Amino acid sequence: MPTTLGWTITDWQQAYREGAEPESLISKLLDYLKDTDNAWISRLDDQGLNTAMAELSEHLEEVDGDLAQLPLFGVPFAVKDNIDAVGMATTAGCPAFAYQPGQDAAVVRKLKAAGAVLIGKTNLDQFATGLVGTRSPYGAVSNSFNKKVISGGSSSGSASVVARGLVPFSLGTDTAGSGRVPAGLNNLVGLKPTKGLLSIEGVVPACRSLDCVSVFGLTIHDAALVADCISGFEPADAYSRKAPTALPLDAPAIRRSGPVQRLAIPDSPRFFGDQQAEAAWNTALSQWRQLDTAGIELVPLDFTPMLELAALLYEGPWVAERHAAVEAFMANHAADINTTVRSIISNAGKFGATDTFKAQYRKEELVRQIDTLLSEIDGLLVPTAPIAPTIDAVNVNPVELNSQLGTYTNFVNLADLCALAVPAGFRDDGLPFGVTLISGAWKDRELQTLASQWLNAHPTPLGATDKPRPQEVATYPPAVPMVQVAVVG
Amino acid sequence: MPTTLGWTITDWQQAYREGAEPESLISKLLDYLKDTDNAWISRLDDQGLNTAMAELSEHLEEVDGDLAQLPLFGVPFAVKDNIDAVGMATTAGCPAFAYQPGQDAAVVRKLKAAGAVLIGKTNLDQFATGLVGTRSPYGAVSNSFNKKVISGGSSSGSASVVARGLVPFSLGTDTAGSGRVPAGLNNLVGLKPTKGLLSIEGVVPACRSLDCVSVFGLTIHDAALVADCISGFEPADAYSRKAPTALPLDAPAIRRSGPVQRLAIPDSPRFFGDQQAEAAWNTALSQWRQLDTAGIELVPLDFTPMLELAALLYEGPWVAERHAAVEAFMANHAADINTTVRSIISNAGKFGATDTFKAQYRKEELVRQIDTLLSEIDGLLVPTAPIAPTIDAVNVNPVELNSQLGTYTNFVNLADLCALAVPAGFRDDGLPFGVTLISGAWKDRELQTLASQWLNAHPTPLGATDKPRPQEVATYPPAVPMVQVAVVG
Repeated sequence: MPTTLGWTITDWQQAYREGAEPESLISKLLDYLKDTDNAWISRLDDQGLNTAMAELSEHLEEVDGDLAQLPLFGVPFAVKDNIDAVGMATTAGCPAFAYQPGQDAAVVRKLKAAGAVLIGKTNLDQFATGLVGTRSPYGAVSNSFNKKVISGGSSSGSASVVARGLVPFSLGTDTAGSGRVPAGLNNLVGLKPTKGLLSIEGVVPACRSLDCVSVFGLTIHDAALVADCISGFEPADAYSRKAPTALPLDAPAIRRSGPVQRLAIPDSPRFFGDQQAEAAWNTALSQWRQLDTAGIELVPLDFTPMLELAALLYEGPWVAERHAAVEAFMANHAADINTTVRSIISNAGKFGATDTFKAQYRKEELVRQIDTLLSEIDGLLVPTAPIAPTIDAVNVNPVELNSQLGTYTNFVNLADLCALAVPAGFRDDGLPFGVTLISGAWKDRELQTLASQWLNAHPTPLGATDKPRPQEVATYPPAVPMVQVAVVG
Repeated sequence: MPTTLGWTITDWQQAYREGAEPESLISKLLDYLKDTDNAWISRLDDQGLNTAMAELSEHLEEVDGDLAQLPLFGVPFAVKDNIDAVGMATTAGCPAFAYQPGQDAAVVRKLKAAGAVLIGKTNLDQFATGLVGTRSPYGAVSNSFNKKVISGGSSSGSASVVARGLVPFSLGTDTAGSGRVPAGLNNLVGLKPTKGLLSIEGVVPACRSLDCVSVFGLTIHDAALVADCISGFEPADAYSRKAPTALPLDAPAIRRSGPVQRLAIPDSPRFFGDQQAEAAWNTALSQWRQLDTAGIELVPLDFTPMLELAALLYEGPWVAERHAAVEAFMANHAADINTTVRSIISNAGKFGATDTFKAQYRKEELVRQIDTLLSEIDGLLVPTAPIAPTIDAVNVNPVELNSQLGTYTNFVNLADLCALAVPAGFRDDGLPFGVTLISGAWKDRELQTLASQWLNAHPTPLGATDKPRPQEVATYPPAVPMVQVAVVG
């Protein structure tokens, strides 16, 4: 068993500062990875390791050996297999769809430039269509706490390999909750950034207008560090966005500058009969209420517009974005697509252009309703996943349970919000429970600050590793500063 | 003939300051309007005038007789008949579609609150679908300079009644150029504001995601004053927007703060064989080049991405927005719809949800290309309409000529730009020629400043009235100020 199991990024950095060699640590790690572990779709082979080590040496020479300029020097990571990385096929969870990418996705390129070492590509619900982790010909990924339970998806493998401490961080994608649900079910931090903050260039689209690259980490510190390394405007990606100079001063509180303190919680949270989840939520709420942080306040609120928006994503024409992403492939290889995924994508044919625009109008109306509802609310606090079903249960009822899983995640990207899923204790059955903090676009850092205060007060072990959680950083500076308007010239 | 013919808003204000009575002036004006004038669909009747005068008296009492608080006191105006006003049916140019609105559109409500008096609703290309002014069962509206020539549309009547000096301003709508093309063809100012600045609440949608209320005026001063009176966020309108606190400092020049000075012009402008338009454009360009204004520079540029975006609006799935607006009506009253309009709206059925999302992706890509192209360009200067066809020619070739008319207008709303159409001399055949200034969202005021400098240097008579143009105001303060970022707290 490699000594690196369960190491955070901070641990890896510490080891290198003390003289450890990347090749030695990473080759031991690669030797340990099992062929039977279906969290992986591909892993770095010997030749790939040599190439990676040669590139890393070059990077180090470029900065004259100054490790401080390579914040992720020698840190191994994994990416979901819908993200391009040179030398490993991109399958999107569908072998017949596989292709060899000519270049790295923008986020992979940036991670490598920061010194990180990609060691493998991970399993996923095919075409990132699912929140369960079972819709893959590479096998269902198990929960890292209980083999019979789902990992959650669609970024199932990326969550699993971090939760088990194989790598300190991984990339997922998140359209409807794929970067949050598996974080919640595996005791991880799942960072779902502001849409457009991390480029989706080189990512197989799910819903291109909504897709985000997400980060899984054992700690908030690690996830935030990774996000910082890979954020930034990419002109070639039409959905990449620059942060505004200032957040609007007269916007609803959810979209204004300032700390996230006043949190809406669902006034009648839905758990679909999962009493353990409900009990864990109530325990977490009582802990949040006692949180010794100035200004924190929980406000029960009617989440009807959020739930209607969530349903719109699932039941409305956005499914046609998934069709647009694989249209040519599907026309010739329908039989190669997972039956549940195929059935979902086929729903695209039910919607015409008129339906699409009408649904987009409804979306705008619901977002306006939500903004009005949150005019004096800084953020939302919700259960990350309201249920934690077994793989067998999902196989029997693949669509309804999937839909239930997305109750508190589906609306977020449609409403241009950012989110941070964090551990929140354990259920009586030993499964982890998670909560998600949500706020307006560009307030990612404010969520990190609040979530750090939470985890410092209520630390859980790291993922499924039993390692104790280190103290989180207390404060993250806002990405968009509060400004006073000073007219110039 | 009423003395008020050809009066600007400034003239009306002056008359009231000198003691004129609204009822006297406006009743004379109403008496003068002809039943045979197909620019009008409805006009204020005696009872309507009484009601309007009673309301005006109330407004005046509320402000203790201080006219300065009612900037449009007693100023008559007209609105395009796809904008709701209590007491007059909204037809959208289709008698079978007509309904009696229960309340005024937001913009009409604000105009009345400012003291303005609505005297009629104007003809339009049916459902605002057209740039010609001929697609209406109420008759084709003639150009105010030549009866055989089109007025342009879709806001045909609103342009005609201002150009002929019946009212000093009117409201139109502008989705693809409907507020600019008729301004260009009738020697008017056509203000196409930033999308969301003027609410579309109470307006029959054309393409709801793109629609703008527009303003026709004889002068920039008047159009700008009206826009200021009716701008502002409307929470009930999901497409209404608040101005940002600051424009992005690192955006392309077209979207940054600062005066509009460096103007792109088409490197190979299209006139479709209209040599008079081409000559007028070249004359205007030589005058612009000699404009005695610091910093003005004309930069010939390849407009290919703008033209592709323009074509996307015409040929792509956005036509389904028009279908969404009249779906229920069309299902039962197809025969009541203008054949050209019906044929265009019926194209909605050709597009599925997948096509729609793919076109939206292409739109985002083209906007990114345009932004990159305009990274050092403050604005665009284009011919408002590249042709000025006769009504007969349009009747023979209704779709192609319409499409040519939109060459330099169609892309603007899709790319989130604002525009200001202004007079630019006359063609040899006596028809007016117009140019349009275009810049990024929220830079409406910067366009007004530049256009005022232009008109002060090259004044034309007011509309079709022969009245000389008064000096325009020299400077309009930016709506979004330039800011220095000062971090607070």
